[in-house]
Amino acid sequence: MDEVARAFVPGHVTGFFGVHRDGDPTRAGSTGAGVALSEGVTVSVEYARETTVSLDGEAVDVEAVERVLGALSVTAQVRAVSDVPLGAGFGVSGAMALGTALAANELFGTELSENELVTVAHGAEVQAGTGLGDVVAQARGGVPVRLEPGGPHHGVLDGIPARGRVEYVSFGELDTGDVIGDDTGSLTDAAEQARSKLVKKPTMERFMFASRRFARETELMSGAVAEAVDAVAAVDGEATMAMLGETVFAHGRGLTEAGYDPEVCEIDVGGATLL
Amino acid sequence: MDEVARAFVPGHVTGFFGVHRDGDPTRAGSTGAGVALSEGVTVSVEYARETTVSLDGEAVDVEAVERVLGALSVTAQVRAVSDVPLGAGFGVSGAMALGTALAANELFGTELSENELVTVAHGAEVQAGTGLGDVVAQARGGVPVRLEPGGPHHGVLDGIPARGRVEYVSFGELDTGDVIGDDTGSLTDAAEQARSKLVKKPTMERFMFASRRFARETELMSGAVAEAVDAVAAVDGEATMAMLGETVFAHGRGLTEAGYDPEVCEIDVGGATLL
Repeated sequence: MDEVARAFVPGHVTGFFGVHRDGDPTRAGSTGAGVALSEGVTVSVEYARETTVSLDGEAVDVEAVERVLGALSVTAQVRAVSDVPLGAGFGVSGAMALGTALAANELFGTELSENELVTVAHGAEVQAGTGLGDVVAQARGGVPVRLEPGGPHHGVLDGIPARGRVEYVSFGELDTGDVIGDDTGSLTDAAEQARSKLVKKPTMERFMFASRRFARETELMSGAVAEAVDAVAAVDGEATMAMLGETVFAHGRGLTEAGYDPEVCEIDVGGATLL
Repeated sequence: MDEVARAFVPGHVTGFFGVHRDGDPTRAGSTGAGVALSEGVTVSVEYARETTVSLDGEAVDVEAVERVLGALSVTAQVRAVSDVPLGAGFGVSGAMALGTALAANELFGTELSENELVTVAHGAEVQAGTGLGDVVAQARGGVPVRLEPGGPHHGVLDGIPARGRVEYVSFGELDTGDVIGDDTGSLTDAAEQARSKLVKKPTMERFMFASRRFARETELMSGAVAEAVDAVAAVDGEATMAMLGETVFAHGRGLTEAGYDPEVCEIDVGGATLL
């Protein structure tokens, strides 16, 4: 048996989402849609008597990761390296949870299936209060549409068949818990409208349009984010806000053409995977 | 709009399967498990007044491809290039159907979702009588386990989290229709036993073991196939038969170590994708 196991999990930016609470964390989650990115988080898991977790070389407390290891009844040294910023709407905590599940299962021979590992990571993320839909989307890859909330045994996913360049700029952090902890009824109504529009025409253009409308209706856009989205629209590009971060992402070259200096990646192809 | 759209679909070798017939082709299909391969079929779709289909430069009749184009109400020039042999258990017809669906949707802007495109390709393959489970497995990638039969709206998939080298040798062709057209009750019983064993322990070792047992119980192995499987077992490797072809595949280096000169690829990561 190797001494280390590794997994890659794509970053994931959500365009719109509705919150679905449930006492059972495998049924709780979010509906909505987003984009999985070719940039993401690489997680290495090694044997250790006591669990330690680091992100880009610094010790961090990530409750979802600890819950995953607890569910597998193991302790380990978990080292994550991220291409995308933390706390800016890229699903880094979900990626760390899912990457830990995949890599720890490989290292310790816990013999869980992919659906079971995604369920463990999704449940851990929900119970930690750090995310509701990133994990299932990151497991699928591409441009995942969350039709029904929850882990693999309850949720229903579809996808928009699309490839191509994704650009993004981040202006700062937003605390997911602050938003998804509040009253979320109007969020869910706006998400249902967006979902309904997208299902009728599952294209990237419609996804970006529905997401911008969601961001405006829910008043989640900060000044800098709204300004960048408008600037991209002014050059006939397609951009919207990453939920929940002070981040704008574009499909294509819109941010560059609007004069920003964005990070550049691609729509992820295959979802989370062992390395 | 571009003048050509392209998609890659992994080859897929099935280790064991049970047949589930249904008047509704989106509910018909197979249970079972297999391995999606890093080698597969690249499909290019271009505008054309009359539909033509070629494989590796030669004109071919592939009913599933024609049914896919019919379902999308388009005509096109479809050119497929395959890394894996036709008629040898690699799901080439399913790959051509799914690749055509993905690429034609992109070229013609038919605005179907991924689930809808997989449904179209799965239904076309079932109606053509050329396959029952390859398409949904090829769409998922990895090591797909078909828990419930049918297209994305009815079937249930899981996966074995595994990576690594796959080797294969092909000794000739088998006609899928000849086998899945016959009475398949004992096949389905053996498949249910294999599935039940695999679900309890979703590992590659268990998958290969259950598949070999399925192949022996159903008496589907030819002399050359059985000989190769035994030769790999003799060097402590893991090999089994690709259903349905005169093909043996191994996880790891078993065929090489047993003195064969196999083709070498990897477990596919992400499933079918636009290029």
